[in-house]
Amino acid sequence: MPTLLVIGTGLMGASFAMAARRANIFDVVLGCDRDARAAAAALEMGAVDEVVSDLGSGVARADAVLVAVPTGAIADLIRAVAAAQSVPRPIFDLGGVKAPILAALAANGGVPPQFVPCHPMAGSEAQGAAAASDDLFRGRTVIVTPHDGVDPAAAATVRAWWRRCGAEIVSTDAARHDAAVGLTSHLPHVVAFELMAQVGDDDALFPFAGPGFRDFTRIAGSDPALWRHVLLDNRAEVIAALDGLLERLERIRRLLADGDAVALEAALQAGRDARRRYLERDGG
Amino acid sequence: MPTLLVIGTGLMGASFAMAARRANIFDVVLGCDRDARAAAAALEMGAVDEVVSDLGSGVARADAVLVAVPTGAIADLIRAVAAAQSVPRPIFDLGGVKAPILAALAANGGVPPQFVPCHPMAGSEAQGAAAASDDLFRGRTVIVTPHDGVDPAAAATVRAWWRRCGAEIVSTDAARHDAAVGLTSHLPHVVAFELMAQVGDDDALFPFAGPGFRDFTRIAGSDPALWRHVLLDNRAEVIAALDGLLERLERIRRLLADGDAVALEAALQAGRDARRRYLERDGG
Repeated sequence: MPTLLVIGTGLMGASFAMAARRANIFDVVLGCDRDARAAAAALEMGAVDEVVSDLGSGVARADAVLVAVPTGAIADLIRAVAAAQSVPRPIFDLGGVKAPILAALAANGGVPPQFVPCHPMAGSEAQGAAAASDDLFRGRTVIVTPHDGVDPAAAATVRAWWRRCGAEIVSTDAARHDAAVGLTSHLPHVVAFELMAQVGDDDALFPFAGPGFRDFTRIAGSDPALWRHVLLDNRAEVIAALDGLLERLERIRRLLADGDAVALEAALQAGRDARRRYLERDGG
Repeated sequence: MPTLLVIGTGLMGASFAMAARRANIFDVVLGCDRDARAAAAALEMGAVDEVVSDLGSGVARADAVLVAVPTGAIADLIRAVAAAQSVPRPIFDLGGVKAPILAALAANGGVPPQFVPCHPMAGSEAQGAAAASDDLFRGRTVIVTPHDGVDPAAAATVRAWWRRCGAEIVSTDAARHDAAVGLTSHLPHVVAFELMAQVGDDDALFPFAGPGFRDFTRIAGSDPALWRHVLLDNRAEVIAALDGLLERLERIRRLLADGDAVALEAALQAGRDARRRYLERDGG
């Protein structure tokens, strides 16, 4: 009876549990969450079969452990899970920042070989198991960032699970991952939160917002507590990406002030061309 | 046989023609476009019944004229249409910037009383009549910016047409409109184009982009030539909105550099709170 323990039964953890169940990867899914209501919601959704309140007893029964908690809490939990395992079994996470987790583990006892760092390019601004879906990872990319000492068998097993959940795997190192998502994910979140707040300084502006605004600011509905951790954990990369954007926006400001129509249109065209290349890669 | 002439048979003009037909507002829709392929596409879509190549003969047959062309070309066309009308009939537009159009008309012969400036908070990054939809304005807001000399009957008629197409009307003055959309629409377009171009400096980053990025950058698929005009026509307001965002992003940069978790989370929370208020207003 292959058994999965999901620690953190929010949207992401519950969605993996449901996707894995649909793919018949595990017979039993145990759920553990320090918030008893979150665990109960996952049980009610059918995402987990049983709620365990004691981490150790859950780990003892599990053939694999998914650590699906906010980035700041991941390293400590991985260390605790690895210590509780009598034999090493795959441990994987969904953290949006990878190098700080590996650094925290390396600095305190080493990175467990059975830990396979993962980050699915999937999610939702919604929260909680009630919003979970067994389809969340279908057609999405999952970034896997193996560390030097990773157990190849554990890494291969975890990759295979993701594929059976419908995801495509991209492997890279943690530093490269963090720089990339600093630009593609963390920076857009910062801008969406800030632009939404700027418009929200005068709610009478809301009728002037169309569907473009609505999509642009969707991610401003994300969890501020979770995102504060992500942004601070990856702050060097977020600042680098932000500096790049600030420089670009300052340039646009000059082109507008100068009325430089040719350079302005060329800048917009570069964005549109990139968008077309991105959509071609991403399946239109 | 109430007849509408649509000048500019792209996505927006064709969509209004289709929505108006579905609402039984006009019996005949004439289309006119300086790009013969665009006019032919609208005819093929069934958006227009007949293509007219001569503006004067089209205007002579029309009970109302929709000027659905890029902002830079709107004022000249309104002047030409008004001059060609033997009796005043409603003329309305869909321009994303309003004060410069009214200023251009005022400076050269005056604003025709039958001109009712409109801007629907609807659209798509797609282009051309082939992407048009009779549903584009349903549930959307249309901003109407009546000028001092507007014919009240013309304004009432045009508002009623929009309502019959499923839209909700908000009336305001042109300056207020331009300031509002500078922030809610033009600024997000600038940021989306620029962030997309920044990521596009290295296409190998595309696999690191998830659904949040995809939605955030959707409007970077918009037409650069059209948007260059909008941004320059409204540049004072776009610059003011951009300065507000730059100041906010510089502040976030400081909070990240300082590791000020409390202030950072409060900033994100302000964005999320605004997003919630916006969605409540916008129907969830």
